[in-house]
Amino acid sequence: MKINLNADLGESFGPYVIGNDEELLGVVGAANIACGFHGGDPVVIARAIARAKETGASIGAHPGHADLQGFGRRAMALSSEELRLSVVYQISAVTGMAHALGHPITHVKPHGAMNNQACVDRAMADTIARAVAETDPGLILLAPALSQLAAAGDAAGLRVALEIFADRTYEADGSLTPRSRPGSVLHGKGEALAHVKRMIEAGGIVTREGSVLPTPFHSICVHGDGAEALSTARALRAALADWGHAPVTLPEAMAG
Amino acid sequence: MKINLNADLGESFGPYVIGNDEELLGVVGAANIACGFHGGDPVVIARAIARAKETGASIGAHPGHADLQGFGRRAMALSSEELRLSVVYQISAVTGMAHALGHPITHVKPHGAMNNQACVDRAMADTIARAVAETDPGLILLAPALSQLAAAGDAAGLRVALEIFADRTYEADGSLTPRSRPGSVLHGKGEALAHVKRMIEAGGIVTREGSVLPTPFHSICVHGDGAEALSTARALRAALADWGHAPVTLPEAMAG
Amino acid sequence: MKINLNADLGESFGPYVIGNDEELLGVVGAANIACGFHGGDPVVIARAIARAKETGASIGAHPGHADLQGFGRRAMALSSEELRLSVVYQISAVTGMAHALGHPITHVKPHGAMNNQACVDRAMADTIARAVAETDPGLILLAPALSQLAAAGDAAGLRVALEIFADRTYEADGSLTPRSRPGSVLHGKGEALAHVKRMIEAGGIVTREGSVLPTPFHSICVHGDGAEALSTARALRAALADWGHAPVTLPEAMAG
Amino acid sequence: MKINLNADLGESFGPYVIGNDEELLGVVGAANIACGFHGGDPVVIARAIARAKETGASIGAHPGHADLQGFGRRAMALSSEELRLSVVYQISAVTGMAHALGHPITHVKPHGAMNNQACVDRAMADTIARAVAETDPGLILLAPALSQLAAAGDAAGLRVALEIFADRTYEADGSLTPRSRPGSVLHGKGEALAHVKRMIEAGGIVTREGSVLPTPFHSICVHGDGAEALSTARALRAALADWGHAPVTLPEAMAG
Repeated sequence: MKINLNADLGESFGPYVIGNDEELLGVVGAANIACGFHGGDPVVIARAIARAKETGASIGAHPGHADLQGFGRRAMALSSEELRLSVVYQISAVTGMAHALGHPITHVKPHGAMNNQACVDRAMADTIARAVAETDPGLILLAPALSQLAAAGDAAGLRVALEIFADRTYEADGSLTPRSRPGSVLHGKGEALAHVKRMIEAGGIVTREGSVLPTPFHSICVHGDGAEALSTARALRAALADWGHAPVTLPEAMAG
Repeated sequence: MKINLNADLGESFGPYVIGNDEELLGVVGAANIACGFHGGDPVVIARAIARAKETGASIGAHPGHADLQGFGRRAMALSSEELRLSVVYQISAVTGMAHALGHPITHVKPHGAMNNQACVDRAMADTIARAVAETDPGLILLAPALSQLAAAGDAAGLRVALEIFADRTYEADGSLTPRSRPGSVLHGKGEALAHVKRMIEAGGIVTREGSVLPTPFHSICVHGDGAEALSTARALRAALADWGHAPVTLPEAMAG
Repeated sequence: MKINLNADLGESFGPYVIGNDEELLGVVGAANIACGFHGGDPVVIARAIARAKETGASIGAHPGHADLQGFGRRAMALSSEELRLSVVYQISAVTGMAHALGHPITHVKPHGAMNNQACVDRAMADTIARAVAETDPGLILLAPALSQLAAAGDAAGLRVALEIFADRTYEADGSLTPRSRPGSVLHGKGEALAHVKRMIEAGGIVTREGSVLPTPFHSICVHGDGAEALSTARALRAALADWGHAPVTLPEAMAG
Repeated sequence: MKINLNADLGESFGPYVIGNDEELLGVVGAANIACGFHGGDPVVIARAIARAKETGASIGAHPGHADLQGFGRRAMALSSEELRLSVVYQISAVTGMAHALGHPITHVKPHGAMNNQACVDRAMADTIARAVAETDPGLILLAPALSQLAAAGDAAGLRVALEIFADRTYEADGSLTPRSRPGSVLHGKGEALAHVKRMIEAGGIVTREGSVLPTPFHSICVHGDGAEALSTARALRAALADWGHAPVTLPEAMAG
């Protein structure tokens, strides 16, 4: 079985640095590149694309709300037209830059509040999925397993890559435990690795209560902020290899 | 002889309206679409593209400095890398939107201070021209006749469309008379039409002192802000037809 | 009885014009000045203040969400700390400019989505009211009659000026009829004047169904976008004078 | 002799972190707080002010160009009115926040390109100095010794605090050696301390060639980005104490 690791990158802005693109691109097989609305600027985006080209990681556009101050993490109420065209614009910008730099994008993954809203709001999810298809129907939509966004991607005729989270616990309905609740985030690489192992063996999402929600998945989302996150990502990559899952790009993971 | 009329469009932002895209697109054969940095947002850009598709006007990306408050009219000192990638990003965003909306772009024209700086600063001009070629070597660069930007477009191997201005006077070196000097802007359609007629007949730019700087030109830049500007643009289109120059798109004007 | 008229001003941005500050300041007794987040920039703000000083209108800070593209009309989910400090910052900026220009502010009125959210969400309303008091406890809070924001202002120890809307209908609970419903906005000066007259005579808000919700009010909110709105505002000012209500500033209306 | 140490703070933005405000405020006696244009947002600004209040450091407003992506380091061509009102707005915002938080500002120091431009362009310097005086004539203007900005502050009737740089070399005319030239920045605490010591002993700026330009100075500018800069700042504070110069706030340094 081939499993991809994905992470958000290119989210710095001017002199403002977020994450560690250089190091993280040595670990993951797919990078979600910020598009300039919640983070990222043309120079930052180009550097992330160039580094991904070096490491061979596949890349995707990572559109978010136009809220730099809130880093795209604050829910916003956009009209359907605003949301659709914001997504088309953002994918287009990164698509063209990636083309110019010789490393085309292969997927799209919404960021932060846009992603969270689309996981539970089917109308928003449909708007986003259709905007992706309108921009390039060959793009893969990377969406959380069991989410409305994944269902919307199917309905829009897109290839949908399903992701799980290494360091977050799940509720009975398959949603992530809100960060406001104790225990929602797993700390330390031991817990994260055990969590991922359980889900691979169970063939689905393992909830906080221990029940299994069967679902395929193609990618595991990791983070790179801080030394611990990077260390966990590295440990996870090594563990997956031990368990027989070679590191692959997102298109390779989709190809089975 | 075929002569194109071009104008800047899609420069509104959210609820903020600049110009009259609807009316102006009934007049010009080519529209320079703002890309979201000095003006324009995804909804505004999409509407301008859709309207140009209806009227048959060819469209181009109109990148500017990231200075919404100053509308891209304030000179900024960007590094060569910042300028290059800003241009690639902006062209890419509008290219993708235009593709999704079924009316691909065919040219690029820099905006405001970016354009003014590139007309006299060859290094900036080269950076911009190379960024256009890097993004899509098939794009036409629309540049003022006799400018450094036009020369840079040639050097970068681009097709270069040369433009003159209907309502601005010229200095002895072919540069525009600075707006700060009296008489730099022609008012009323009579003056503008006479100015254009003289330049067509002379086969070049006619300076304030009356000398002729021979140069071909493919397009005339008009403005749409205010009732007078729109009226002048309409009168110019009618006069060109009277003089035997059918209204054409920019690619048609380039084809001779 | 003294009744104030208030309107939003200073909402243009760079070359982008919204409203007609010049004309509207000849009509209203109080101006709510945008603070640079949803609209307004330092030059626009200064001009609005200077014009209000000429006409004698009292002025207030008009803070909104940091969403220029959406003009502060899109609901955003801010943390309590983000909201509080955003309000303190925005009031401070306009307070200082008004002080430098010799026409100090006397009130605060939130804008758009921030105001709408605070009218029904008591926690947000409390955060805003406390931020006003923290910045300057002598400021008047201008809030819709019967709203949670008005209640929060009382609880924070502020003087609260209550406003009604000339051109909007009310539901049974005193809230504005949502714009999405037919008949929510009154068109033409006749309807607006009759609506205001009924509320003055009834001593409270008159709902769509015709019932009366008794409440004092000190100010009537008018708009200046478009020729019709300006004309209605002028007609309302004249009618109020006919009915014996001299045009006053907001502090004068509060003084009874 | 009392010498102040000053540093730029509050320049983070949303989740984007620049510098180490917490640590640096344990070292310097005066903090220049970004105002939200080139860096800083309401939450970041408030935290920097609160921390300065704890340590007893005096604070000032640190206005910059509205260029977040370029961190205010890119020269921009503003009109005199734009520059003046931008400065008034920014000082006002921080003045009000500092007042609300109980730790009033006592000085103003322009940032980055705005500062650099004003050091050599007397018209810009005059505009800035008058904007400070217009906002609050009691504020101290913190300006590089021997600069046009310092002269403009004198002409505007402001108290002017003169600063020197611990880690930068000087040209024969008293200007900083451009960063583009080798040797313009001193590396390592040893060099910086020796440089400062020479200037204290000489009673003026010591140029690269070793000549002395006599001038009083009240403050030394230090930086906090990176472990080395913080370490140099700490060493300089200790060395100044050894040499008999107690750490003081900027107003204390001005009081002599």
